[in-house]
Amino acid sequence: MDVASLADAVTKGDRRALARAITLVESGRADHRAQALDLVAAAGHAGRQALRIGLSGTPGVGKSTFIEAFGLMLTGQGLRVAVLAVDPSSARSGGSILGDKTRMERLSRDPLAFIRPSPSQTHLGGVARRTREAVALCEAAGFDVVLVETVGVGQSETMVAQLCDIFVLLLAPAGGDELQGVKRGIMEMADLILVNKADGELKPAALRTCADYAGALHLLRRRPQDPPGFPRAMTVSALDSAGLAAAWDDMQALTGWRRDHGHFTATRAAQARHWFEHEVRQGLLAILTRPGPVRDSLARLGDAVARGQVTPEAAAAHILAELDQRSFISFQT
Amino acid sequence: MDVASLADAVTKGDRRALARAITLVESGRADHRAQALDLVAAAGHAGRQALRIGLSGTPGVGKSTFIEAFGLMLTGQGLRVAVLAVDPSSARSGGSILGDKTRMERLSRDPLAFIRPSPSQTHLGGVARRTREAVALCEAAGFDVVLVETVGVGQSETMVAQLCDIFVLLLAPAGGDELQGVKRGIMEMADLILVNKADGELKPAALRTCADYAGALHLLRRRPQDPPGFPRAMTVSALDSAGLAAAWDDMQALTGWRRDHGHFTATRAAQARHWFEHEVRQGLLAILTRPGPVRDSLARLGDAVARGQVTPEAAAAHILAELDQRSFISFQT
Repeated sequence: MDVASLADAVTKGDRRALARAITLVESGRADHRAQALDLVAAAGHAGRQALRIGLSGTPGVGKSTFIEAFGLMLTGQGLRVAVLAVDPSSARSGGSILGDKTRMERLSRDPLAFIRPSPSQTHLGGVARRTREAVALCEAAGFDVVLVETVGVGQSETMVAQLCDIFVLLLAPAGGDELQGVKRGIMEMADLILVNKADGELKPAALRTCADYAGALHLLRRRPQDPPGFPRAMTVSALDSAGLAAAWDDMQALTGWRRDHGHFTATRAAQARHWFEHEVRQGLLAILTRPGPVRDSLARLGDAVARGQVTPEAAAAHILAELDQRSFISFQT
Repeated sequence: MDVASLADAVTKGDRRALARAITLVESGRADHRAQALDLVAAAGHAGRQALRIGLSGTPGVGKSTFIEAFGLMLTGQGLRVAVLAVDPSSARSGGSILGDKTRMERLSRDPLAFIRPSPSQTHLGGVARRTREAVALCEAAGFDVVLVETVGVGQSETMVAQLCDIFVLLLAPAGGDELQGVKRGIMEMADLILVNKADGELKPAALRTCADYAGALHLLRRRPQDPPGFPRAMTVSALDSAGLAAAWDDMQALTGWRRDHGHFTATRAAQARHWFEHEVRQGLLAILTRPGPVRDSLARLGDAVARGQVTPEAAAAHILAELDQRSFISFQT
């Protein structure tokens, strides 16, 4: 199938076409990359927008159970839901979160849902691009909500927050002094903190944890894109499906306010510009690691620098001068 | 004075020449930059090495008092001591730490000491390079110890640690729960934690804080370049000059061990390589911000991306293709 036909099939909601399209954007091959650019651009002509929700939480907070319950609630309202996973660690471990769909058995069988596991092999630099393009393809395919799940470690949160409209942090009940465990940076990105497992014996602990986080959020400076009362912390129970409707109401209220006040569009524009500039920087820096004369010079001069034969500054100036006689290098992948 | 004569004067220990040489490496002018490269290379031929000590501490911990007392103790032993300051915030505020030498009045009058304030105007990207080159010039001028002082905020610690042989964190006595205030990342870089103000009424608090940090350090994984017992926490009183000799003994023991075990040279080699690669990356990325056709394209396409007229990925590919027809751009400053 050529790129135009594939884009057409995606925008008609063909799920197998969508899966194939995502496989194409995940590919590291140079010819696939060129096709992927055309594909995403063509699919984008449909002009559709989903609500993009980023969801972060460390292993053990009940992310899968939450996504299953939350997703089923949305599909129960007739909404189409796509779930994508971002797991930078999978490139190293070869494993993956959402590794098989058995984690969300009911949601994966729901005709209104589409679940895409994290690819087991991805070069790390490509994770953001792959995810961004997969989100765009899901939007083109007519999904109403795209949930981007990530593990609560490393820099993947920042990345996911930079490509979503809403960022949700899922937590488990904890002792009062575990508040510090959540990095301040992640707290500052969250629009909504959901303390899960507010059921049975853990309910009092969940309420206490929620109050702690509500207090902590209160101390953070309000961002221009936050309506009064946000960011907010609340308890949910994915097990009992309790609090999920309230969480969804909050997400809709937040999004509505942001649309009305121009923040929704402005944030998406800023995000797009951010990723454009990020891609350009990555593309420039790639010539330093791609096999070729530049990488060879870098290694050779790096050794001389390490031996003290030339200063770091003089060696760097030499490399940059070499790049000016650059008929032999290419900035394109 | 030409570059060769200036380098010669620096290596002969001429303090005014050293001050002029540092002014040259601090300059942002392109012709000065070329001269600075030659100057640092020429001065380096002397092959001298100082012990480079990085010192970090937030305002109020008594950094100036400590440096004055510690520096005077070293000059009292006949050692020549240079003090450099790194203050990334000075580029914004226009102010500077070590803004005038009155902060360390006695040390600044000591013929064996050389104090160089942080320049009030520096473009931020140049702070690391300027400092590195100033350290190299102080070494060439025959100083035995180069103390690089930085404020305990932002990323300046990482930078200073990457250009010093020993990294010292100076703290003030505090309540037990203020331990969290020090970022884990900074703790992990410290070879020595000195709790200052262990005098008078604050002494018990200083001992308690020291014990807290000693406990925290104990939990960190030992690095290959650490002898048994390091990193270590101890109390000092800059006011009473208490503990300073013990701190200096520790620094010498640490350095001696690292020399004997090959870590000293290996770390310097790795640092030099790091800065070389860092400079190359900065040089490459500079074409995106330097006035010229690339920056103009970036702004124009960025607007189109923000308006949704082109995807971030396609726009980035376009810029990188443009860079391949690059007869009009230069990677040299």
